[in-house]
Amino acid sequence: MSTTAKIVRFHKTGSAEVLQFDELPITEPKPNEVRLRVKALGLNRADVMYRSGQYLETPILPSKSGYEASGIIEAVGQGVDPTWIGKTVSTVPGTFSLNEYGVYGEVAVVPFHSIAQYPSNLSYEEGASIWMQYLTAYGALIWLGQVSKGDFVVITAASSSVGVAAIQMVKAQGATSIAVTRTVAKKARLIELGADHVIVTDDEDLADSVNEITGGKGARVSFDPIGGKTLELLAAAAAHKGIIFEYGALASEPTPYPLFTALAKSLTVRGYVVVELAQDDKELKKAEQYIFDHLASGAFKPLIDKTFRFAEIVEAHRYMESNNHVGKIVVIV
Amino acid sequence: MSTTAKIVRFHKTGSAEVLQFDELPITEPKPNEVRLRVKALGLNRADVMYRSGQYLETPILPSKSGYEASGIIEAVGQGVDPTWIGKTVSTVPGTFSLNEYGVYGEVAVVPFHSIAQYPSNLSYEEGASIWMQYLTAYGALIWLGQVSKGDFVVITAASSSVGVAAIQMVKAQGATSIAVTRTVAKKARLIELGADHVIVTDDEDLADSVNEITGGKGARVSFDPIGGKTLELLAAAAAHKGIIFEYGALASEPTPYPLFTALAKSLTVRGYVVVELAQDDKELKKAEQYIFDHLASGAFKPLIDKTFRFAEIVEAHRYMESNNHVGKIVVIV
Repeated sequence: MSTTAKIVRFHKTGSAEVLQFDELPITEPKPNEVRLRVKALGLNRADVMYRSGQYLETPILPSKSGYEASGIIEAVGQGVDPTWIGKTVSTVPGTFSLNEYGVYGEVAVVPFHSIAQYPSNLSYEEGASIWMQYLTAYGALIWLGQVSKGDFVVITAASSSVGVAAIQMVKAQGATSIAVTRTVAKKARLIELGADHVIVTDDEDLADSVNEITGGKGARVSFDPIGGKTLELLAAAAAHKGIIFEYGALASEPTPYPLFTALAKSLTVRGYVVVELAQDDKELKKAEQYIFDHLASGAFKPLIDKTFRFAEIVEAHRYMESNNHVGKIVVIV
Repeated sequence: MSTTAKIVRFHKTGSAEVLQFDELPITEPKPNEVRLRVKALGLNRADVMYRSGQYLETPILPSKSGYEASGIIEAVGQGVDPTWIGKTVSTVPGTFSLNEYGVYGEVAVVPFHSIAQYPSNLSYEEGASIWMQYLTAYGALIWLGQVSKGDFVVITAASSSVGVAAIQMVKAQGATSIAVTRTVAKKARLIELGADHVIVTDDEDLADSVNEITGGKGARVSFDPIGGKTLELLAAAAAHKGIIFEYGALASEPTPYPLFTALAKSLTVRGYVVVELAQDDKELKKAEQYIFDHLASGAFKPLIDKTFRFAEIVEAHRYMESNNHVGKIVVIV
């Protein structure tokens, strides 16, 4: 068995090309860590932002990267039950710092508390495509937003992996999803994926359409990773006492706060990151169980847009940045 | 007894001078209404905005005005127990529409559900100076914000009547108030009024000062009627998972939403109006009792800045707009 492994790192922040393969010694897990033989990587927006130097955490160079991997435990550190060796698991983003750990590699050492088993009906690719999207959606929609039967939920960037997870989760809760997409290109696909309604913002006024769909009530919950002018549109489309979750900052323009609408409707705008959920042990366990159960029953099905080979990690990042995907981008290691 | 009364109305929206005295027939209260012989009027910002055509409700001209009055019930409509006649009460803002009712006058007809008794240790002037300020503060700080011991609460526009009420309420809850004022002029007065800390924004950086006061924790709750750039400052001064109540729009500039800070700190920004509390019967009764008890015990003391005669209603409005007051502006009828 080789004593080194290919690890993806970047030595400066920047566009996808900064990612490179470094051949590094395989290290033993320290106490309360495990080492995975990585099988698949799930890409997410945080990886791209971190690589670009635009994430909440600033990389310490040269830096590893990557939040999501599935793999098989091949070594455990002190304090971890050795019967975990040989088990298939995936990593739970938000439970570790990207400055300390990164999963892009043939092997990855991560904290023991950052792994979770997933149902055996899922492939490695699917196993690497669950926690970020379902936990992110769960934290806002179920933990904080308490979405339930009768609710209308607006989901922007609906064709992202988190968006698709949110569509499935809203349905599982018996509520009505309103998926929002910019162009007509992804409309049919979003309906196919289970969206109850799709609004194409290039062709329709968001607030008018939401009003029509909700019989004038507006949406009680919105779930938005964009910001910018989208926040004003979501406020206009919101129900009285509605809540808008902002969970990202994809818009490049500033985000005006719709003060008068917020006063008129008693709106809540909540900045939300999945780390909140990931750092609340009790709630995280509840969330993991909820997601495990819905995956096992088939109610949730991770959607994989495209897979890349490990050697194509740069192309995979570029593809994510082209915004042409619907669902998860996965790299097979 | 005269069959007419002087009622303040405006026949067009605009500056204070649009307010005029119309001699109008005294009308009988309709079912579930009462008529007060007005003793004192409490001015508030909503009156000024309504008169200017900038309020959430648009006046139907010619329009009455005014949310807050104390007085003696002199007639009751069908459905109201006649033993109320002769009792001293004041009106609870937010429980009626300014398009239907307005209390600026020698008499005022209001809904029965819009009146409340106040402790007998209060004068008419004080009785007209309680509900708007204490209910507004209560709804955000206690009902929604659950301020309690150990909390730090930032109060902007601290020398307004709501600001002063908030200072008293934060103290009553065992929490620490941080009053914010633009210039040093009102600093000593705010300390005298019970503020635990005062930040003068012309001389100090709000976030730096709040950080110092809170030992780096930030403020869990902020209570702001200004908006505009103040929201960014409050976000910078907020604790992780802090909540910022926006309850007005005094700033004339747009209000940028601090998206990155909101994500980094999981902030909640909540548009809040006292009407929410006023329309929740159960919570309103709880709030009225809480306020009544604290007024009766002396823990709350309505602060009257200046009183005007009824004939000086235009001057009283002008004085409010000059922003030189600390506490309530009252008109004696």
